[in-house]
Amino acid sequence: MELEKILKMLEEREFKELKEELSGMYPVDIAALLEEVDKRQIVLIFRLLAKEEAAETFTYMDSDTREFLINALTDSELEEVMDEMYLDDTVDVLEELPANVVDRLLMATDEETRAQINTLLRYPEDSAGSVMNVDYISFRKEMTVEEAILKIRQVGINRETIYTCYVTEQRKLIGWVDIKDLLTSSESKRIEEIMDTNILYAHTHDDQEDVATMIKKYGLVAIPIVDYEMCIVGIVTVDDAMLVLQDEATEDISMMAGVSPNDESYFGTSVWQHAAHRIPWLLFLMLSATVSGMLLAYYEKSMAAMPILITLIPMLMGTGGNCGSQSSTLMIRGLAVGEIRFKDIFKVIFKEIRIALIVGVVLSVANAIRIYVMYHDIKLGSVIGITIIAIVCMAKVVGCTLPLVAKRLGLDPALMATPLISTLLDTGTILVYFAIVTVMFDI
Amino acid sequence: MELEKILKMLEEREFKELKEELSGMYPVDIAALLEEVDKRQIVLIFRLLAKEEAAETFTYMDSDTREFLINALTDSELEEVMDEMYLDDTVDVLEELPANVVDRLLMATDEETRAQINTLLRYPEDSAGSVMNVDYISFRKEMTVEEAILKIRQVGINRETIYTCYVTEQRKLIGWVDIKDLLTSSESKRIEEIMDTNILYAHTHDDQEDVATMIKKYGLVAIPIVDYEMCIVGIVTVDDAMLVLQDEATEDISMMAGVSPNDESYFGTSVWQHAAHRIPWLLFLMLSATVSGMLLAYYEKSMAAMPILITLIPMLMGTGGNCGSQSSTLMIRGLAVGEIRFKDIFKVIFKEIRIALIVGVVLSVANAIRIYVMYHDIKLGSVIGITIIAIVCMAKVVGCTLPLVAKRLGLDPALMATPLISTLLDTGTILVYFAIVTVMFDI
Repeated sequence: MELEKILKMLEEREFKELKEELSGMYPVDIAALLEEVDKRQIVLIFRLLAKEEAAETFTYMDSDTREFLINALTDSELEEVMDEMYLDDTVDVLEELPANVVDRLLMATDEETRAQINTLLRYPEDSAGSVMNVDYISFRKEMTVEEAILKIRQVGINRETIYTCYVTEQRKLIGWVDIKDLLTSSESKRIEEIMDTNILYAHTHDDQEDVATMIKKYGLVAIPIVDYEMCIVGIVTVDDAMLVLQDEATEDISMMAGVSPNDESYFGTSVWQHAAHRIPWLLFLMLSATVSGMLLAYYEKSMAAMPILITLIPMLMGTGGNCGSQSSTLMIRGLAVGEIRFKDIFKVIFKEIRIALIVGVVLSVANAIRIYVMYHDIKLGSVIGITIIAIVCMAKVVGCTLPLVAKRLGLDPALMATPLISTLLDTGTILVYFAIVTVMFDI
Repeated sequence: MELEKILKMLEEREFKELKEELSGMYPVDIAALLEEVDKRQIVLIFRLLAKEEAAETFTYMDSDTREFLINALTDSELEEVMDEMYLDDTVDVLEELPANVVDRLLMATDEETRAQINTLLRYPEDSAGSVMNVDYISFRKEMTVEEAILKIRQVGINRETIYTCYVTEQRKLIGWVDIKDLLTSSESKRIEEIMDTNILYAHTHDDQEDVATMIKKYGLVAIPIVDYEMCIVGIVTVDDAMLVLQDEATEDISMMAGVSPNDESYFGTSVWQHAAHRIPWLLFLMLSATVSGMLLAYYEKSMAAMPILITLIPMLMGTGGNCGSQSSTLMIRGLAVGEIRFKDIFKVIFKEIRIALIVGVVLSVANAIRIYVMYHDIKLGSVIGITIIAIVCMAKVVGCTLPLVAKRLGLDPALMATPLISTLLDTGTILVYFAIVTVMFDI
């Protein structure tokens, strides 16, 4: 509806009304709009935006639209956008663009900014340094509250970045002041009287996920990032932390389904890239599954003697795989949100075994009833019952142990999710199944 | 280390030092500490906390510790804690406690608070009303900046809640003011001159996940919650939004592994509850898997004629299941973060089919080589190759369609994850497999 209204305005060349309409919209919504309109209209709409709004919209665009726009804008227009953008956003934008476009963008910035950008680009991917904001407010401890408020007025930067201000002494971080304290303290007080010296901070090289988790845990609006000399070099704000946590959850979920993680969106990824992200796991799992196949070949004679055994295989393999993935998934998520740690491993195994016994008994009774109803065979029902209990116990123990062990070894626990666990358990299930039936039926 | 230090202080009865140590700690860390110490030490440590700190620590505890503490504290101590707690935290605490404890807690609050608590308790679970904070600052539009700052000083509440202040007229929300604007505007200006009337807000009955997603999307610190008459009744702050999003991700991930979602932590859930959350899906899937088993029974003769066919079943079922879960997982996550919508369904299916062709060809070539190496049988290799391509295409289409359809029908897309998809696909795989081999080998 919004889109139609705007397209109509464009068509009828009501630029003044359109400009007003756009000024009432949020940049994130304008960026979404630009992805929907025709290429040639993108530039038209973009040029109607106020400078600050244009820069913010630019940061929310997908990389296609952004690249198109960069090629369409004049050098001086580009310079204006770059001037208004926050440095951390500029760096995000640059990281996604092809080298020739990056060069053109860097040409549009002044030398000082270029040096800062280069510093930021040098931080490792996924580090706190790579997501931090270099716009923050710092006070000296000798300043009065009045001087501090004056400084905020003069600097006048983005609002997220002023809720907490930092106190430095020769660039070293020595305290912080909440804006509320500034507002409610007498103007003649000195900053050192009202500052809090109990500081939560992170290092430039810390993992961005750990930093985001700290922000969440302590309910912060921003956290200062320091270098190895305790000098403040930037801040990570809560809005960036939310995006980091979302991306990390998406990464975990993809990996848990055997898809290599990918920073791009579903539609932003080409068919070939999608295939490339999915094939390695599938190939590995397909070849691993031949082990289960070879085991089946080994037990061919038993199956020939009792053909009904074959028909139970999908049910047993399915149950083993599902039980295992329930446990491994709970572990992977528990590790990710910091609720479960490696030292809990024995507590976890003991708990999972008890759960497995309850689950196993319920499933095997249900199944014994089904087999009795279908085949009137009590012995088969009880043998399969025992098999199910054994398989569930094996599945739960394997499922809860592997993610914890992976974490301990410094691997990503999400690797030990459904695809790998269920392929492993397929083999285990067949072994347990035939071990039990060959003994019980003497075949 | 921290823990040992504190236990040592307790043992040596160095209460003054311990009190100081505790006052330097964050409430969330103190709560974690209390979960580690002996029961009788919990009360001892808790009584050493400053009033405000005690109340905040109380909100971070697990429900066991909290219940124990409520029973151990005197009525007047309890009253102090309740007085200091924010109303939304009180409600969260009450929701988790047994009825007799709730009564005792409600007795410890004054009548006005009790009425407010009852209103909050009446909002549906997972609604914006149930997570909102009722402490916020509102101005009248005639107030001057000076009067507004004075009001903040007098009310003096929690810092998250003052970064944005709201302007009301007869309780109706008409605008908002960022604290930065207050700080940087002349004291004699009127609020209506500096307020922003372009307001983002949500309704009390909106889903908490949608509200949290709005906060994330627009990078807000807080969002006002209004009733159906546009009167502001509370705010949801970004720290609560982060927890909501984390819980929702955990819920999705659990459901995707066939575990009923659960608000409690892994260790906070009893063995019986864990079993109860896992059995329904396992039972359903186990019984569904018998369909695949019955199909196998139907094709028994074909397998007897060519026993090698059996050994390929785990590999084919595994590949089908894995391909399907890759697609369904990407859809479920894409829907959750708002990147994919139902109207994209044909675009998605077309994309998945192209991906499936690439993936299928690669997997079938790899597999044909393996079969040729192992059995020197070119015909078998090519038949299985064709089967794999067919299965991968089926798996990808089913995997990407079901979550979208579930969303459309108002079901949770996470239901259509690995366990269900792979059980469905097991049946599909067997059908496709035997349809192809019986024709090709004429058995």
